[in-house]
Order: sequence, then structure tokens, then C-alpha cells
Amino acid sequence: MLVIKVGGGADIDYPALCDDIAAVTARGIEIVLVHGGSHETNRVATALGTPPRFVTTASGHVSRYTDQAAMDSFLMVYAGKINKRIVELLQQRGVNAFGCSGLDGQLLRAERKATLRIVENGKQLMLRDDRTGTIDGVNSTLLNALRHAGVVPVIAPIACSHQGDALNVDGDRAAAQIAVALRAETLLLLSSVPGLLRAFPDESSLIRIIPRADINSYMDVAQGRMKKKVMGAAEALAGGVSTVIMGDARIANPISIALAGHGTTIS
Amino acid sequence: MLVIKVGGGADIDYPALCDDIAAVTARGIEIVLVHGGSHETNRVATALGTPPRFVTTASGHVSRYTDQAAMDSFLMVYAGKINKRIVELLQQRGVNAFGCSGLDGQLLRAERKATLRIVENGKQLMLRDDRTGTIDGVNSTLLNALRHAGVVPVIAPIACSHQGDALNVDGDRAAAQIAVALRAETLLLLSSVPGLLRAFPDESSLIRIIPRADINSYMDVAQGRMKKKVMGAAEALAGGVSTVIMGDARIANPISIALAGHGTTIS
Repeated sequence: MLVIKVGGGADIDYPALCDDIAAVTARGIEIVLVHGGSHETNRVATALGTPPRFVTTASGHVSRYTDQAAMDSFLMVYAGKINKRIVELLQQRGVNAFGCSGLDGQLLRAERKATLRIVENGKQLMLRDDRTGTIDGVNSTLLNALRHAGVVPVIAPIACSHQGDALNVDGDRAAAQIAVALRAETLLLLSSVPGLLRAFPDESSLIRIIPRADINSYMDVAQGRMKKKVMGAAEALAGGVSTVIMGDARIANPISIALAGHGTTIS
Repeated sequence: MLVIKVGGGADIDYPALCDDIAAVTARGIEIVLVHGGSHETNRVATALGTPPRFVTTASGHVSRYTDQAAMDSFLMVYAGKINKRIVELLQQRGVNAFGCSGLDGQLLRAERKATLRIVENGKQLMLRDDRTGTIDGVNSTLLNALRHAGVVPVIAPIACSHQGDALNVDGDRAAAQIAVALRAETLLLLSSVPGLLRAFPDESSLIRIIPRADINSYMDVAQGRMKKKVMGAAEALAGGVSTVIMGDARIANPISIALAGHGTTIS
């Protein structure tokens, strides 16, 4: 079992990814795919007159601020366009993909963060009405029912709060929680970089191997969005996943190349 | 088993529908919901600079012309915003709803109409690149797997072509095919009118009862979009569904009121 998260950058090669998923599943390897959609969400939200707002939390993470208008764009692009276009690419390649979000059937349950403490112009502010959360449960019974029905799940990182609200959750950490729940051997985090870079954005500074015991010490090496990938990797390893790989999603054969060791391998 | 199709008009009361779904499922009646989304799709597509184009086919039906840009808007609104906001309304009411489209897992298979013969300014034209089709298969194995997993399916009317392409399919006829495949007793078509009207838009001309043997003779009574509902009703009845009801989706308790006979009942 291989759980893959593919990012949502403008330069992601989705057809190449889907070619590789078809090749890998044909070899009998089971896949669950979690996807991003940030670039297209920003484009659509801006076109609809509700441009995205990014905030830096007090703990130093950069997050999308998700009020109800932002959630509409998020649902449209993540659960609509990106999810279904990926399913279509896979169906066209003979893979019986099945797209849904973590809201559906409470596939991903999350605790809503009622308030978000952010830093803006050096000052701390409290934001309310943010529709984000932290995953605290995976409905593995439902996920297994889908697998047993013979489909390849394609999951948008939207979770269901304990009150039934749709929440924006981090895709890398969602994939990590799914990998743990399904006892996957490998978690593959594909995005617009070749892996974890010691000196971002210098791609020649790629870190090839990280011993699993050292993963937390790499939180300081990771910049911006990569911090969530390191957090996801740490959560997956702590939950029993053997190997986490960060690889490049802009190239042909992205899965095979990452599995062959051409990314950052943590094990 | 009750299969419900709810329309996508601007005046549909989705919270009221979801209140009633919660009440009906609490009485032990199993529900599958198919939904529309036309009004919101038109709004979003127009805002994104690709306004909808409606065409009249040679056989007299009004259809949405779905090129790839229109399909993007269709996927965003139907499979994204509307599907997930309905799932959220149901989850908030304690109903474990599960949203997907007919593309997912080939839940709905359809034959693509490669060309569309339309009438424009009195002349016949052929349109190519239209992404629409006619359903010729329902994956009832997968649908039953979802039901046995204890979730209420909420389905966007998008089908999978035999080449794996996403197709826009008629929601009323999709609901009819699902009702037949699941051997549902009742198909309920809820929209922005109280039922089939003898003199549209005069709501006092509501036709209360149609004997099932007479359904085809009502094709001429039905105007515009209602023709698809009559076709769906005829297909459902021919496929073994006992009762088809057309009811009002703009009011409180729309399901209970329709089941009580306050729409057009065909049986």
C-alpha cells in the first residue's frame, strides 16, 4: 500500500502522474491518492472577486485563511475541478479511480480551530470564522469499503468537524493520517521541488537521506510549506509507516523516480 | 428505498430539504440523493468569463452546451460547491452523507454523443466537442457498497464515458436510472415548480395524478426542462419503479409534502 500526496503547484504534471499511477497499479501495488489545488484555487478565488488571504500563525506556519467565501472556492477547485479532472485522467488510463473529499462519510474527522492566532506587521491578532482544523480521526472502515470495491480513492483534503462543518485541512498531514490508518508501508509526498532542500530554492542542495530518528531536527531546515511535509513525515513514521519519501511532481514517472531514491528518503 | 432528485434553481431551499432528509431517514427510510446546480453553474461560469451556452436540439430539447471550459465550471459547481455544501448540511443534521459524482468509480456510465444537432435561428447546425451523453449503465455494486457502509449517497449528475471522459448527463434521467438499478419503490423529482403544470407557469394548473399507462401522452404537456422529468419518469416506471412523484423543492418539508400527494403522482 502506497499513499501518495501530490501538491497543487502550477507546474505539477498531472498527466505524467496518472501515467505512472496506471503503471504502478498494473504491477499490483495498491494506491490511495491525496491531492492539493492551491494554485488553481487562488486563480479561481481571485477571478470570483474573493482573492485568497494567507496568514502567518504565531507558531510560524503560513496558512490559508478560510472564511465561508474562501471555503466555496476551496470546495469548487479541490473537490470539484482538481479532484474530478484527476479521476478523469485516471479513468482515461484504465484506472477505476473514485474521487471524494474527507468530508464525505466523515472519511476525515477534524477538530476545528475556533480561533487562529496570527502575526501581522509584527503584531499578534486573533482571527475567528476560520474554517480549518486538525485531523483527529480517519474512517478506515469506509476507506476499506472503497478499496474492497476495487476503486482507487482520490481524496481532497477537506475534513468533517465534530459539528458537521467542512474544514480545510493540510493535505500532507491528511495523507500521513490516511497512511497510518491504512497501515501503508510508504508515504510519498510529491510537489514542485525535488525533495527537502538544505538551501531552498537551490535544488542542488537536495537532502537524499534522513535517518528516521533525526526527522524532527529537520523542522528548522524546512522553509514555508515544506514544514508541513516534515510534520506529516514525522506523524507518519510515528504512526508506523516504514518509509516517507519527498519527491518531484513536475517530471515524467514521478512515482517510480521517487521510489528509486531520487528524492528525500526518510526511513 | 427512495431516490430523490433535487433541482438546481435559485429558489431551492436546500436546508429545508436536508431537514426533511434527516427526518425521513430517522424513520428508517433509505435515501439516495441526486442534485442539480444549473443556476449556480451559470453564475460561476459567467463570473469566470465563460458564460453558459444553451442550445435547442433538433428533437426540441434545451441542453447546456458543454465544451471543456463549461465542463470545468460544471465540475466546480456540481461536484464541488453544491455537492459538498449539501453533504455539509446533512452532516450538520446528523446524517452521514457521502458525496461523489457518477464519474467516480464509473458509478454512472454513459455513451458520449459525439455530435449534437441543434437548431439556431431556424437552421440546423452540428456541434462537436460537446461533453454530454446518455446513461447506459449504473455501477450498482459500488452504490450498494456505499449503502452497506451506512452512508447516504449524494450524487452529482456527471457520468464516465466508455473512453473515461467526464460527461454532463441529465440529472432527472440519472436519478431514474439509479432508482431502477437499486429497485427503488419511489422516485421523487423535486424542483422549482409544484409538479407538472397543464398551463405553465400557472401553478393552479397542477396535474395531481397521472395513471402510469398515460405518462408518454404528457410529453406534449411538459414545457422545456419538464420534458426531461417526464422522460425520466417514464424510464423509471418502465424499469420497475412503482411510483414517480414530481414535487416542490422551494418549501419546508418538501419530501413529506410530496409523498403526501401534494405534487404530481404517477403510479
